[in-house]
Amino acid sequence: MEQSFCKLNFITNGDGFTDITDDLNSFIQKSNFHSGILNLTSLHTSCSLTINENADPNVLKDLEKFMKSIVPLNCYTSLSKDREEIYYEHFQEGEDDMPAHIKTALTNTNLSLSFKDGEIILGTWQAIYLWEHRFAPKERSISVHIIGEKNSSNYNNRK
Amino acid sequence: MEQSFCKLNFITNGDGFTDITDDLNSFIQKSNFHSGILNLTSLHTSCSLTINENADPNVLKDLEKFMKSIVPLNCYTSLSKDREEIYYEHFQEGEDDMPAHIKTALTNTNLSLSFKDGEIILGTWQAIYLWEHRFAPKERSISVHIIGEKNSSNYNNRK
Amino acid sequence: MEQSFCKLNFITNGDGFTDITDDLNSFIQKSNFHSGILNLTSLHTSCSLTINENADPNVLKDLEKFMKSIVPLNCYTSLSKDREEIYYEHFQEGEDDMPAHIKTALTNTNLSLSFKDGEIILGTWQAIYLWEHRFAPKERSISVHIIGEKNSSNYNNRK
Repeated sequence: MEQSFCKLNFITNGDGFTDITDDLNSFIQKSNFHSGILNLTSLHTSCSLTINENADPNVLKDLEKFMKSIVPLNCYTSLSKDREEIYYEHFQEGEDDMPAHIKTALTNTNLSLSFKDGEIILGTWQAIYLWEHRFAPKERSISVHIIGEKNSSNYNNRK
Repeated sequence: MEQSFCKLNFITNGDGFTDITDDLNSFIQKSNFHSGILNLTSLHTSCSLTINENADPNVLKDLEKFMKSIVPLNCYTSLSKDREEIYYEHFQEGEDDMPAHIKTALTNTNLSLSFKDGEIILGTWQAIYLWEHRFAPKERSISVHIIGEKNSSNYNNRK
Repeated sequence: MEQSFCKLNFITNGDGFTDITDDLNSFIQKSNFHSGILNLTSLHTSCSLTINENADPNVLKDLEKFMKSIVPLNCYTSLSKDREEIYYEHFQEGEDDMPAHIKTALTNTNLSLSFKDGEIILGTWQAIYLWEHRFAPKERSISVHIIGEKNSSNYNNRK
């Protein structure tokens, strides 16, 4: 069992989803690992790592819209009977910053994925997304850590 | 340190919770592992893996009811001041499909559990659930991947 | 590759955040591990493990306030058009108990973190929090499990 550590950087296009599945599979193959755990940590508190549908783009649109509607900008109303209006106290970094922290808390910063035969084990309709919650494009770093088995040395020698 | 990969299939009974703790512990024991990480990935985008209470069944009822109330069918109202009414754009696979994708995004598709002495480390009141968000019964596949130490060969020989 | 298992206990101060990053890094260093996976499981169903901002304390205040406003005590209103008022059926363990189970389901019980050079890989503005959802102070147990490489024996001998 061996380890490999790396950071992968992605430029997001403002709020929305970037499919990073292929980049992660490429990293596994370049690192010459066969099978193991691919442990991912987003190094930010205003974007998420999530697994969701890779087929109908309306699924991603609806996800984005839903998230914006339960975590609105500036002010939101409580679900308690009195429907209190609540303002964020942290607003100095932009009106989209505190909502982004909340969206991150409601989703995931960390995914621990299994891979075999050099490929992440996913269902047919699944992709791994970097979900940007800030409105402006950002450079995002993902810590990528593998613990697993490398391809046999015979295989390496032949290359 | 060794690895083992498997898929476990479960038939869910429509929306609600299936306790899979015992099945997972059985898998660990049959695989003859002593201690390690049990990495779980649901291979679907409309059900979740979650850890919650195993005692009062009303806890699961309240969880289900809450989830349905913040992710309603067909149309939901925003928490912003104007309380906009929003309709899903992805509705072609059934009215419970897009809400199921959102519920999956708000919970987990992936759990990385520790086990020791052949048993998952959990608190007294915890169980691991497959949380079905679709209304019809479904066959669901969970990728089960162990990295850990096997029972000693002495122990194996004695069996 | 070696393993180490431990439980770390924390006294929470009622609802809110306890930064456990330093305790976790100390545990790694005391265990003499160099690099690997630190797998954390909260052994409770009414508090969470989460990664969020470590800079402006208002971020944590806003997170707490938001969570309380979407998961209120006693009764909440649905986001469906009819805005149904819904009461919890599980209320016997205190009015803050069922909301705590829901908050746990919406966040995380389990984090699988990577560490290198004896330190958890995090972004500059990230900390790991134990997020207490019950109102009274509680003693909370976190299962801490390492799979990784120990410091070389040379290094050990020199100490």
